[in-house]
Amino acid sequence: MRVLAIDPGFERVGIAVVEKKNGVDILIFSSCFMTDKNLAFSERLVLIGEEVERIINKYSPNTLAIETLFFNTNQKTALKVSEARGVSIYTASKKGLSLYEYSPLQIKIAITGYGKATKAQVSDMTHKLIIIQKKPKYDDETDAIAVGLTCLASEKNV
Amino acid sequence: MRVLAIDPGFERVGIAVVEKKNGVDILIFSSCFMTDKNLAFSERLVLIGEEVERIINKYSPNTLAIETLFFNTNQKTALKVSEARGVSIYTASKKGLSLYEYSPLQIKIAITGYGKATKAQVSDMTHKLIIIQKKPKYDDETDAIAVGLTCLASEKNV
Repeated sequence: MRVLAIDPGFERVGIAVVEKKNGVDILIFSSCFMTDKNLAFSERLVLIGEEVERIINKYSPNTLAIETLFFNTNQKTALKVSEARGVSIYTASKKGLSLYEYSPLQIKIAITGYGKATKAQVSDMTHKLIIIQKKPKYDDETDAIAVGLTCLASEKNV
Repeated sequence: MRVLAIDPGFERVGIAVVEKKNGVDILIFSSCFMTDKNLAFSERLVLIGEEVERIINKYSPNTLAIETLFFNTNQKTALKVSEARGVSIYTASKKGLSLYEYSPLQIKIAITGYGKATKAQVSDMTHKLIIIQKKPKYDDETDAIAVGLTCLASEKNV
């Protein structure tokens, strides 16, 4: 009943672990994992996969919630983000986590109740919905928490 | 000095292992690995990663050669192929293989010497350039062999 939530990327990967305890959403872990742009892309993929594996081993989530890719005008970037996304799904699936995917629209609606909410509104609401010790420095971290909250709100069996 | 060559996909993944021995290109292994469309996509990614790992363990290639994605009109398919492609690169990089990527155009030129060659011409020439015991049933397998031959022809240090 513990969700590993990921906002996919290759420069910055938002990662959160959330769970519902006695009806309350709890944040167990969150971070923005970054990879050095001077590294070969294949090395960055390895670092991302290993970080996802490390978080799974440390916090034992049983579910992966991950954002679907927003169709980007920059197709080259979209393909690279997809490669990194595939590595996260692969690593989590190998570890036996079940997978839930949410579109940006689904996340907006789950968090704010409003499909046309701005990024800032989603972010503010996310910070109100769950106790966060330290306000995340990067949006990616908040985005991952929002994905996790969406999963806790949407899936009864999680 | 042994190349694992991959034509990426998620329904069908072309896989080949080739090497140059005394100036002659040799085909060590080739197959078209298929995943069942009734499986969850995450399971298909796991099967692809595990197959790539199995081939690496069995044939000990030191280099991965993989085709870059052709910019597709079907962006949804392109994103899924990218996820599977990321899994192959991740698995090979974790195993220490170095990575070379080739565009469809580079492969056409390496195999036929002509950038506007048709798919059939590339396929015919591939079958002439290397001894293949049994003509591949699927194009993906031939495509993987072509990627491998491109790598052997292009990289002096392979």
